[in-house]
Amino acid sequence: MASMALLFNKSPNPSLSFPKTHKTHYSTHLKLPLSHHSSPKTHRKIRISCGLIDPDGGKLVELFVSESERDEKKRKAVSLPRIKLSRIDLQWVHVLSEGWASPLKGFMRESEFLQTLHFNSLRLGDGSVVNMSVPIVLAVDDSQKGRIGESTSVALVDSGDDPVAILSNIEIYKHNKEERIARTWGTTAPGLPYIEEAITGAGNWLIGGDLEVIQPIKYCDGLDRFRLSPAALREEFTRRNADAVFAFQLRNPVHNGHALLMTDTRRRLLEMGYKNPVLLLHPLGGYTKADDVPLSWRMKQHEKVLEDGVLDPETTVVSIFPSPMHYAGPTEVQWHAKARINAGANFYIVGRDPAGMSHPVEKRDLYDADHGKKVLSMAPGLERLNILPFKVAAYDKTQSKMAFFDPLRPQDFLFISGTKMRTLAKNGENPPDGFMCPGGWEVLVEYYNSLAPAGKGKVPEPVPA
Amino acid sequence: MASMALLFNKSPNPSLSFPKTHKTHYSTHLKLPLSHHSSPKTHRKIRISCGLIDPDGGKLVELFVSESERDEKKRKAVSLPRIKLSRIDLQWVHVLSEGWASPLKGFMRESEFLQTLHFNSLRLGDGSVVNMSVPIVLAVDDSQKGRIGESTSVALVDSGDDPVAILSNIEIYKHNKEERIARTWGTTAPGLPYIEEAITGAGNWLIGGDLEVIQPIKYCDGLDRFRLSPAALREEFTRRNADAVFAFQLRNPVHNGHALLMTDTRRRLLEMGYKNPVLLLHPLGGYTKADDVPLSWRMKQHEKVLEDGVLDPETTVVSIFPSPMHYAGPTEVQWHAKARINAGANFYIVGRDPAGMSHPVEKRDLYDADHGKKVLSMAPGLERLNILPFKVAAYDKTQSKMAFFDPLRPQDFLFISGTKMRTLAKNGENPPDGFMCPGGWEVLVEYYNSLAPAGKGKVPEPVPA
Repeated sequence: MASMALLFNKSPNPSLSFPKTHKTHYSTHLKLPLSHHSSPKTHRKIRISCGLIDPDGGKLVELFVSESERDEKKRKAVSLPRIKLSRIDLQWVHVLSEGWASPLKGFMRESEFLQTLHFNSLRLGDGSVVNMSVPIVLAVDDSQKGRIGESTSVALVDSGDDPVAILSNIEIYKHNKEERIARTWGTTAPGLPYIEEAITGAGNWLIGGDLEVIQPIKYCDGLDRFRLSPAALREEFTRRNADAVFAFQLRNPVHNGHALLMTDTRRRLLEMGYKNPVLLLHPLGGYTKADDVPLSWRMKQHEKVLEDGVLDPETTVVSIFPSPMHYAGPTEVQWHAKARINAGANFYIVGRDPAGMSHPVEKRDLYDADHGKKVLSMAPGLERLNILPFKVAAYDKTQSKMAFFDPLRPQDFLFISGTKMRTLAKNGENPPDGFMCPGGWEVLVEYYNSLAPAGKGKVPEPVPA
Repeated sequence: MASMALLFNKSPNPSLSFPKTHKTHYSTHLKLPLSHHSSPKTHRKIRISCGLIDPDGGKLVELFVSESERDEKKRKAVSLPRIKLSRIDLQWVHVLSEGWASPLKGFMRESEFLQTLHFNSLRLGDGSVVNMSVPIVLAVDDSQKGRIGESTSVALVDSGDDPVAILSNIEIYKHNKEERIARTWGTTAPGLPYIEEAITGAGNWLIGGDLEVIQPIKYCDGLDRFRLSPAALREEFTRRNADAVFAFQLRNPVHNGHALLMTDTRRRLLEMGYKNPVLLLHPLGGYTKADDVPLSWRMKQHEKVLEDGVLDPETTVVSIFPSPMHYAGPTEVQWHAKARINAGANFYIVGRDPAGMSHPVEKRDLYDADHGKKVLSMAPGLERLNILPFKVAAYDKTQSKMAFFDPLRPQDFLFISGTKMRTLAKNGENPPDGFMCPGGWEVLVEYYNSLAPAGKGKVPEPVPA
């Protein structure tokens, strides 16, 4: 299992890292300043050239309609056949709308879907290649297809039937779920979380087209202000005069081994001659499986860990990556890396078994723990990205702290797996001193205590932080 | 089901097309002239530049040891740990040795295997990309791995324990069969022929390395002289002053619809301005599933069809493609096309559902019939190849012959599927006049008659022609 996270502390910029007081960033639903969304048309045309790595396809795609068109588009949407978006569909609309998947301009048409499945990459009109490993698709069923009929556009609506976006110049094609699953996950074993959540019950057709999002997606969960778009992140990196941006994807609580790694990475980049490497600390905010710690609790844990002061707020940007999680190992890690190029990162830290999990049926990990970094280092369209493989950190009993594993004295090291960590927290026990700051650990214990006791054979329901 | 084949007739060059008399080319075990194998070291270094399309990687790989080294290599092989090759393994040694998979220099190491599974392509040292969609790998089991121990080379031996090749600088890595199957076939359903034949029972490790083949692979089945290597084919195309080579992959008996297509393709190429387009008529000669017509019978059928005289022998080269068949649809069609680039073809004809078959469990075709040509047209590393999609031919009842289907008068056309054709031949019935020449049809009837009557629930055993 991959687990990446890190510590950071007080920040001078409250919209980009955690405020110091506990209450403020959960008690109100702060909105992100929308300046970078206010004139999307200009954004779509301007080539971002602030010294950062170019977005895939040369320019960052943003798919919002302009303020002035909003009412007209809403009226248009009402007249169109409707497709109701699931929670995960909406997360993908969010991802597409902000250009994480640049140069994709909407849900995939068949040619993009096939290239993704077979080549993990897309060839553009000019012959260049961008990485694209995970299908970003929207499923419809027979009756929805029937209702769409000959219409060339559809409205995408939320659970309250409010129009979220328009999909135009649509193409409807077959959704061969078996083939999609086999080629994306390298298995068709039952029990893979994303598949059960989003594919098994989905329709037998996929609908692709050009997306126009009526207004930026908000979740109103107190965390929206941490959801910076690639454009906003690029602005921030530019403002900070970053000459290197190193991204760290995480979906687990943060421990001191992660912090060690981050600090060490910055040190290595400085040694390489960079003057101002900035860390993009980027927890995944979309769908995760039931036994992962929910986003709100992770953010609360990160905040406590922050206060412990290990990383420099001047050189750390914390933000939420809006993508849902596939748990598709070497296939998915490419998506995680590619999306960060679009946000301006030119270094990507990759650990053991990224986006991996246990095989749902057999007693083994689903993926070879080394395949993620190997595949990532060879992936088409990611040649511009510098891959930084993770050094292994473990608890050094002789120093009572997390340290890089020394193979010459293995007996001194204790490996604390995610499962071990969760078991300790569930039982209200403490890890060894120096594994995680006490405040952060308390959040984890609190989270597991908050779970309603599970009935026999039932998974406890997570509650919001 | 894809079925591609075609008619051709008397040829002035007996080593490149069928001799007119029936007996000669099966009664003796003729060997191919080996001139192009006699100095493999030079071949390996010389860039083939005869006006034909360049091989992948810029030069054609040939992996034979030179005549002068042969004895020494044989002695060396005897001293090495041995791996016994299956029939299919030996076919892959053949494929690799002649450079069909150029620039591969042996069975895949892990980095090549992973790139094949994830990207259907390999990135070379100079940054260029070649297509490679099907894993060409050699499996070993735990006990073989144990016997190899620390050795850096192994001998590959045939069923009689005679050394066939040496594999050097070996790398042994895990054979995750489930993942290999899922990513190659897009399904893990039981009952896929290549998997049952070559993967299910194979070892849990793969061994890659540099291949040196002690002497060219021969089958001594009377058909070896039709097994022209890519180098020999290139020589032949050059000798004929071909300015375009169009390849036709087939593994089924030939009917008049195929002939129509071939003639029409040549006509189109002439219209495009080519002066001397040459057809590479290229039946697959490696492993095929039990209910396909065996190679020896197909060649016998092709010969009869030849005599009917539809295609010009001056512009047709017939040869056997030594690869085994995966039945992996859109993934495999890329391999079929890529290998033909190495043999000098710059046009590739692709039909409906190439390399497809029925789903082994569900009542449907395994692949979407259009995906093969779509994937082929977008595949990385195949940009230089011109893809010619197949026009649909069917039996025109008004003309009593095969003709291109006219959607304005569908009622006039009869589609005779492979299954229908086999059923007719099995029952000794005749197809409509003009579907296939009578001599060719008789061979098919003869083949089905030759099968030992199947017991209840048993598949009849094919017998050699």
